[in-house]
Amino acid sequence: MDSSENGPFIDHAEGQLFLTEAFKIIVEEVLCKGTDVKQKVCEWREPEELAQLLDLELKATGEPQDRLLQRVQDVAKYSIKTSHPRFLNQQFAGVDYHALAGRFLTEALNTNLYTYEVAPVFVLLEMEVLKSLRQLVGWTQGDGIFCPGGSASNMYAMNLARYRLFPEVKSQGLFGLPRLTVFTSSQSHYSVKKGAAFLGIGIDNVIVVKVDDGGCMIPEDLDEKIKLSKSQGAVPFLVSCTSGTTVQGAFDPLDRIADVCEKHKIWMHVDAAWGGSVLFSEQHRHLMKGVDRANSVSWNPHKMLLAGLQCSAFLLQDTTNLLKRCHSANATYLFQQDKFYDVNLDCGDKSVQCSRKVDCLKLWLMWKAIGSSGMAQRVDKAFFNARYLEEQMKKREGFHFVCKPEFVNICFWFIPPSMRGKEQNAGYQDRLGRVAPAIKERMMKQGTMMVGYQPLADKVNFFRLVVLSPQVSTKDMDFFLDEIERLGNDL
Amino acid sequence: MDSSENGPFIDHAEGQLFLTEAFKIIVEEVLCKGTDVKQKVCEWREPEELAQLLDLELKATGEPQDRLLQRVQDVAKYSIKTSHPRFLNQQFAGVDYHALAGRFLTEALNTNLYTYEVAPVFVLLEMEVLKSLRQLVGWTQGDGIFCPGGSASNMYAMNLARYRLFPEVKSQGLFGLPRLTVFTSSQSHYSVKKGAAFLGIGIDNVIVVKVDDGGCMIPEDLDEKIKLSKSQGAVPFLVSCTSGTTVQGAFDPLDRIADVCEKHKIWMHVDAAWGGSVLFSEQHRHLMKGVDRANSVSWNPHKMLLAGLQCSAFLLQDTTNLLKRCHSANATYLFQQDKFYDVNLDCGDKSVQCSRKVDCLKLWLMWKAIGSSGMAQRVDKAFFNARYLEEQMKKREGFHFVCKPEFVNICFWFIPPSMRGKEQNAGYQDRLGRVAPAIKERMMKQGTMMVGYQPLADKVNFFRLVVLSPQVSTKDMDFFLDEIERLGNDL
Repeated sequence: MDSSENGPFIDHAEGQLFLTEAFKIIVEEVLCKGTDVKQKVCEWREPEELAQLLDLELKATGEPQDRLLQRVQDVAKYSIKTSHPRFLNQQFAGVDYHALAGRFLTEALNTNLYTYEVAPVFVLLEMEVLKSLRQLVGWTQGDGIFCPGGSASNMYAMNLARYRLFPEVKSQGLFGLPRLTVFTSSQSHYSVKKGAAFLGIGIDNVIVVKVDDGGCMIPEDLDEKIKLSKSQGAVPFLVSCTSGTTVQGAFDPLDRIADVCEKHKIWMHVDAAWGGSVLFSEQHRHLMKGVDRANSVSWNPHKMLLAGLQCSAFLLQDTTNLLKRCHSANATYLFQQDKFYDVNLDCGDKSVQCSRKVDCLKLWLMWKAIGSSGMAQRVDKAFFNARYLEEQMKKREGFHFVCKPEFVNICFWFIPPSMRGKEQNAGYQDRLGRVAPAIKERMMKQGTMMVGYQPLADKVNFFRLVVLSPQVSTKDMDFFLDEIERLGNDL
Repeated sequence: MDSSENGPFIDHAEGQLFLTEAFKIIVEEVLCKGTDVKQKVCEWREPEELAQLLDLELKATGEPQDRLLQRVQDVAKYSIKTSHPRFLNQQFAGVDYHALAGRFLTEALNTNLYTYEVAPVFVLLEMEVLKSLRQLVGWTQGDGIFCPGGSASNMYAMNLARYRLFPEVKSQGLFGLPRLTVFTSSQSHYSVKKGAAFLGIGIDNVIVVKVDDGGCMIPEDLDEKIKLSKSQGAVPFLVSCTSGTTVQGAFDPLDRIADVCEKHKIWMHVDAAWGGSVLFSEQHRHLMKGVDRANSVSWNPHKMLLAGLQCSAFLLQDTTNLLKRCHSANATYLFQQDKFYDVNLDCGDKSVQCSRKVDCLKLWLMWKAIGSSGMAQRVDKAFFNARYLEEQMKKREGFHFVCKPEFVNICFWFIPPSMRGKEQNAGYQDRLGRVAPAIKERMMKQGTMMVGYQPLADKVNFFRLVVLSPQVSTKDMDFFLDEIERLGNDL
């Protein structure tokens, strides 16, 4: 290394040594210990204490390699072990090693997915993965792109639906247009509202459609609300259905909603970020019957399929290049038309991003590793575990379902012995609403497991246990129930 | 593994073995060969041939481990080596091993950055990194968030500026509002227009401000255009300045623009996605003098600092919680208010994403490793290389600058010997415009290096060589010039 000539070189040998040592720590701390039921899922620290332990401050001078390796260790130690069998907190969990190898390779290659020129392999992989996902939806052709999360995918649907109806919106904005309205169920993901705000449509123009007890959109109410909105002078342009709602795991009746959308000629979007993976399963894909009639679908294989964060596909039935027409800016420095290869392979202008991470490789490699049949097994296994848990809960006192589980979200209250049979007492609901947070605090501080809780409409705090990782066994299910009793029986 | 009870388990031992073998391939193919000047930067294949080589198809059944490892090898082989010293194609390049270790750790931990509950370490790291970046901007307080790229960061600025002026836009949308206008230079990044389209403002409402020969916004023209827009009944609400334009690497005069923004009370945003890193350098930070007067700044440490894609900070001077007020949806299943820790640490509602990748760890670890002084050295080294290249080009025949380089983008035409002295000939410009694409095709097919080209306004195709990786030496600079002559002398 001739520093006089070249200044601060990267020392590859030293760097690779560091990386190799860091890799060993990652395997040991995150992948061995972090998936071992005998270890904690969480090493809880109060924020102030954790800040001190991590020694956050960034300074003028660098640190020696051994200190930095210690930092890798510390970050691993105090992070939540989301691949631990006792992490059932939300819609991601578990580790797939093929996907993880794909992720490491993606990071090492450090490529931006916008042109064939800089990302030849990934352009082709993305096309293939999107095609295969579309086939599961039931489309023989179409378009699509990977987005930085399901919220972005849902926004894409909104933007495309708007553009199809009013192409001038791209150049002139919404100022001259009549009020546009979006329809979604009261149980849909909050990203529909965030998207409406971000895209200049406004949250008030997201019309909330009623759901049944299971959390599924009521098509008749949708039809009514669309008519009402029209009568008020607005232009309904998008129905955002949900396949797998966040809390209850409900699937909207797509076929019946498709009828309503067809009747009113409205773009039908299916937010299947969470539930989309049922399409792999012969046994469970009926939950999304009618999805092939949608105009667009959001589907996050980083949730149930364990592809790893982030992996969010936006799928489109359109074959008129709508995605590119709607989003393109034709930057000449990136999308030159006089290139020596087919410039249609330069997919960057389909995105509203410029830099775009490669999210397809990990999914492609995992799919190659276990095949569509392996994916189906994962989905079926999650359902099997969820149904097992449901049966076990019925056998125990104190577990009350919020609703009958249709998917792998199990929503329930735990009633401590002191409260059983006292449903009519004054203050019962308030007291019940404090049970889940109290148990949650205990489980986090002891690090034994993680399960989420929340209120919903007029229902006070309940647990939502999400079963998705195929590494979770029936023994783990039994453990959860025992542990909730252990932590909550004295409340 | 008791498959009768548990179905398709993940086999951790087998998985970790695979990951370890894949890691070896990554180190060898991507990090050793991929950074070795004696190896190709690119193993070019026509799309059809590459598709066949990769055997893209996704099938029902999985493949054996050795076949999958071969796939890891193939993906590495045919991908562009963006860390190769001869990759000078665009605004990312080079490898930092500490950042890469941070990226592997991030992927292994597979955490979503929305609550302290699931990402305690990363919530604290992000706060610290943002604080340190803000300090470089010159702010003692403020806010911020990491976004999936600079385009998203620029959209955030647009959304916040709009919301500050018209808070009702969040609920009611743009329908009732007067036409809003955005101002940016003709050389600014295309994401300003994409953002305006996406946010419902419309591309026509992005008013293009003139630049001088160096590509810098002319404040007097900005002032004129703002006045004109007002006189037409529109409401100017955002000026998006650029620090480091994509093609020329120009820095808008921030101090003088700040005067105009103050006068008209308009939100001043600085898109420093590319140029922001000069703030680390005592020698070069003057290029962004006045940045502390901005309301917001986009800054991508994944470009010049080698943090790795994606790492895009959106920084904000505001202390009134504007980011959260503008973007929040208060989802009760995620942001419960009765948690046992300070819920202000749940940063997810500042984002329009729900799932959000962790982009802070790699930057934090790299910063710890080399310190602010190491960052400064990187920046200074890039300038040193760029100035060296500039001097060498002046000494050779056939290299003509498009403009005097202010930053590390070197824009130039290569004039083959057959064309020299014939500037007045009919068809000269057309012929010149075909030179860069021809040389580019040759360099890609031979795999010797990668440099970008594009036209700009009335200027025909020219090369834009971007010097940023500290591993690049003056010898590499000499090589580029020799190689362009070698590939282009017969044209």
